[in-house]
Amino acid sequence: MSNPLIITIGREYGSGGRQIGEMVAKELGIAYYDKELIKLVAEKSGFSHEFIEDNEQRTSNGFMQNWAASSAYSNGFFSTQYLPLSEALFISQSQAIREIAEKESAVIVGRCADYILAGRKHTINIFIHAPTEVRVARIMKLHNIDEASALKEIAKSDKERGNHYFRYTDQKWGKAQNYDLCINSALMSIDKIVKMIVRVAQIEEEK
Amino acid sequence: MSNPLIITIGREYGSGGRQIGEMVAKELGIAYYDKELIKLVAEKSGFSHEFIEDNEQRTSNGFMQNWAASSAYSNGFFSTQYLPLSEALFISQSQAIREIAEKESAVIVGRCADYILAGRKHTINIFIHAPTEVRVARIMKLHNIDEASALKEIAKSDKERGNHYFRYTDQKWGKAQNYDLCINSALMSIDKIVKMIVRVAQIEEEK
Repeated sequence: MSNPLIITIGREYGSGGRQIGEMVAKELGIAYYDKELIKLVAEKSGFSHEFIEDNEQRTSNGFMQNWAASSAYSNGFFSTQYLPLSEALFISQSQAIREIAEKESAVIVGRCADYILAGRKHTINIFIHAPTEVRVARIMKLHNIDEASALKEIAKSDKERGNHYFRYTDQKWGKAQNYDLCINSALMSIDKIVKMIVRVAQIEEEK
Repeated sequence: MSNPLIITIGREYGSGGRQIGEMVAKELGIAYYDKELIKLVAEKSGFSHEFIEDNEQRTSNGFMQNWAASSAYSNGFFSTQYLPLSEALFISQSQAIREIAEKESAVIVGRCADYILAGRKHTINIFIHAPTEVRVARIMKLHNIDEASALKEIAKSDKERGNHYFRYTDQKWGKAQNYDLCINSALMSIDKIVKMIVRVAQIEEEK
């Protein structure tokens, strides 16, 4: 394919964004990247699979390390071998996302893909969110935990994803203007949301 | 009608949000409120039409006046007769919006209607935005002005609307989580966006 269609999906934990992404990819018959992307990065970068999974969204716990990384950045040391592992990881992931976008149509969930592919034609950037009570109910059912634990997981994830996004993009996570489409997943059934996104993707493909 | 459907539309200046709102209202055969709302408020509050139009989104220029209003607010003086005119206006508009939502289905553009109706069932909150270059092109054509003037108008409007929204809702304007649907109007044709919103409205009405 000469001009692959890329759909990036940012999502709040418990909003159903991952499920929506998987269903959209299946419906359109295109690739889906999430954990798969980690594997790909691991292969390319030589980091162990476990290390990448552990370090993916932990930047909020690594202020000093990241501060040091920023200094290295602004001093022009771009080679990954001079950067702390979290920075090197982000750069490896960015490269992997750009490579995917060159070779095939895909849905890419998370990983600041909207920012990494900013300005790319034939890209639809989506953000999925939901009211806290809806997210709590989903997490309780999914992980078989109580309300307090679900709320705690949600607060932790929001903080981590927000920090991660801001750390690497210098933008506020969930700002409407950074996306083409932001959807409250409680607005209608997941099936109907998938249908809506698929329709938008078809319109984009007709261009 | 026992349970009117309300669609609120927040929009960036030059994004086509007003046009989309008018078309959605026409397509669904429901009322449309924007300038009309001002008239309604003027009638109810006794303020002159011109005064309301002049003062609607000027809170960014009235810091001291608004600071005084906040103090009056926090001291419990809620009666509009003790409040500066800009505050009294906001309260009159909020009352008007609530009255509309009780009596008929409608599209309401602007006026923090999403915040005023927060928690209301059968309400779809939409935010329309577009990349700056697209907004500039629209404003240039619409007002027959040059690029620099269009950019200036856009910057002024963004500041005023952002300040106005934050002043009255204590929330950031354009935060995805405050809306059910945020749409980049450059994503597809205005006709297709209207069709998408109408479909979402029909799904809501089937509930």
